[in-house]
Amino acid sequence: MTNAAGAKATTTETLAGLSEGEVLARIFPRLPAADAAVVGPGDDAAVIAAPDGRYVVTTDMMIHGPDFRLAWSTPHDLGWKAAATNLSDVAAMGARPTALVVAIAAPPHTPITVIEGIADGLRDCCEALAPGCGVVGGDLSASDTLTIAVTAFGDLEGRAPVLRSGARPGDVVALAGGLGDAGAGLELLFRRAVDAEGHPNAELAAALRETHPEQLAAQFTPVPPLECGPAAARAGATAMLDVSDGLALDGGRLARASGVAIDFDSAALGDRIELALGGGEDHGLLATFPPGTVLPDGFRALGVVTAGAGAILVDGAPHTQNGWDPYRGWDGAAG
Amino acid sequence: MTNAAGAKATTTETLAGLSEGEVLARIFPRLPAADAAVVGPGDDAAVIAAPDGRYVVTTDMMIHGPDFRLAWSTPHDLGWKAAATNLSDVAAMGARPTALVVAIAAPPHTPITVIEGIADGLRDCCEALAPGCGVVGGDLSASDTLTIAVTAFGDLEGRAPVLRSGARPGDVVALAGGLGDAGAGLELLFRRAVDAEGHPNAELAAALRETHPEQLAAQFTPVPPLECGPAAARAGATAMLDVSDGLALDGGRLARASGVAIDFDSAALGDRIELALGGGEDHGLLATFPPGTVLPDGFRALGVVTAGAGAILVDGAPHTQNGWDPYRGWDGAAG
Repeated sequence: MTNAAGAKATTTETLAGLSEGEVLARIFPRLPAADAAVVGPGDDAAVIAAPDGRYVVTTDMMIHGPDFRLAWSTPHDLGWKAAATNLSDVAAMGARPTALVVAIAAPPHTPITVIEGIADGLRDCCEALAPGCGVVGGDLSASDTLTIAVTAFGDLEGRAPVLRSGARPGDVVALAGGLGDAGAGLELLFRRAVDAEGHPNAELAAALRETHPEQLAAQFTPVPPLECGPAAARAGATAMLDVSDGLALDGGRLARASGVAIDFDSAALGDRIELALGGGEDHGLLATFPPGTVLPDGFRALGVVTAGAGAILVDGAPHTQNGWDPYRGWDGAAG
Repeated sequence: MTNAAGAKATTTETLAGLSEGEVLARIFPRLPAADAAVVGPGDDAAVIAAPDGRYVVTTDMMIHGPDFRLAWSTPHDLGWKAAATNLSDVAAMGARPTALVVAIAAPPHTPITVIEGIADGLRDCCEALAPGCGVVGGDLSASDTLTIAVTAFGDLEGRAPVLRSGARPGDVVALAGGLGDAGAGLELLFRRAVDAEGHPNAELAAALRETHPEQLAAQFTPVPPLECGPAAARAGATAMLDVSDGLALDGGRLARASGVAIDFDSAALGDRIELALGGGEDHGLLATFPPGTVLPDGFRALGVVTAGAGAILVDGAPHTQNGWDPYRGWDGAAG
């Protein structure tokens, strides 16, 4: 748009100013296509190939406020993370991610560039971490609260799903992926990217990205080791899950589901043990393997499965602290 | 809980006062199981059988404010409608609904009975309309805005999906399901279930349920003719879609996708033609069949497909009015 003086007007297009068809026309070209799509977006429903005769399904929402702050995360970050966290749950079953459906609800005043950025993040994450996985459908709604709901699908390629419940005493406990960086990044943000009133601040967050790139990237754009999920299944993993709430909490879930205890070796947890055990959102894969298994590429041993009823031990001693909760005491300001 | 005087305290349990595990323990027993579930809720992801080698997927969100008002809809209504509208999109592909995943985001002050009511509505809808279809997974989040995101799955049972794009001139246009009642119900609510300030009012809505049970039920607890979707596919339907935005708007979508025109017979549209053409949320199935097809049970002829480029005609004359938009001018009050 050009004004009378010939200068480009700085109008911002919002969702309220565009029809649903116009918004979809802006988003669709940005989304990745799915190799498995038999019928893609645009009809009442999509149709996805399931050559295996089964399919893996998981769903997860990201909500403005509890799950992200717009002062800290870019729209591209949000799209990336929404895809990555769901694809990690698919991989944790031992499956190869194939497709996503994405429902976005946003306030009418939201600039279309925010939705475009989310679409770009979804695409870049799929292309980087799960080539051939794409978006086959979605929904666009108005809401007072920006909300991204992703449902992700995967193909077991003929293998049995790896559940949480199959670990046996004597198994090796191993992890693929990072440990503690995502939690450290969030801790930094809560501590150093808020203003004097405690509100999330964009400039302070941008500065932190410069000084602590690994921790902030782990928090904003996690890179779950998706290929390690099918690799673990092929190697005979007896149990597996996505580590989203810290090793202690998620290890406890696996241990309870399997009716065993997990004994972590402190030397393997690095020099930030509490963060490793309690920091959330790492999105690594915690798996157990029969003794003597040659661990697949990307996995490192962290401990052993022992007899027990869901306990988490460190060097044989009970670990009682629950998962670190960075939201405890947070006032809920969306930012 | 009993107070010192021995009377039952009227405490209301809210989400904020319960752990995620406690909430899930309250919801899970209420949810319907899915016959197709290979791995049900409780792991990183579910696994669903796809004996056909393909599966149908659709997703849709319901948002407090734009999509429902808590002064008008009961939690049971919300669960029912969230299931019914998604299952209707599955049926519109010619598929049999098999499973749902459900993500719910709710304010922390939400009584647990609201979530329980939503779960009950999901169950009752599946049991009534799609026996054997159940909930295989979900997600529970905190949000300022009550949000229900459903992704629904279906089985094509070896048939080709019925798309929007296959209608040919000469085909019969037919509808299964109601026409206009859901829109009439919403119109009644907007007109007669608001207080002097225009805010949604629960007592006025309850009174309308008594005086206009069919219209209010069509709006709150739609009964899409799900079995008519596979029946249409078996009968050779050339195109089909779920009528959620009125016959004119959705018929236009089918006509444009197929590169044809649709000529409705006014005598078949009943005596409320504008409401039939423009009223939304009926969730009937609009389908086209080759000439001479014996229409499956539940379908009635409404017109014919003619040559054209997406036009909607009534008795051969162009119908230009767009779908009736009950939200036009609505101030967005959530109620």
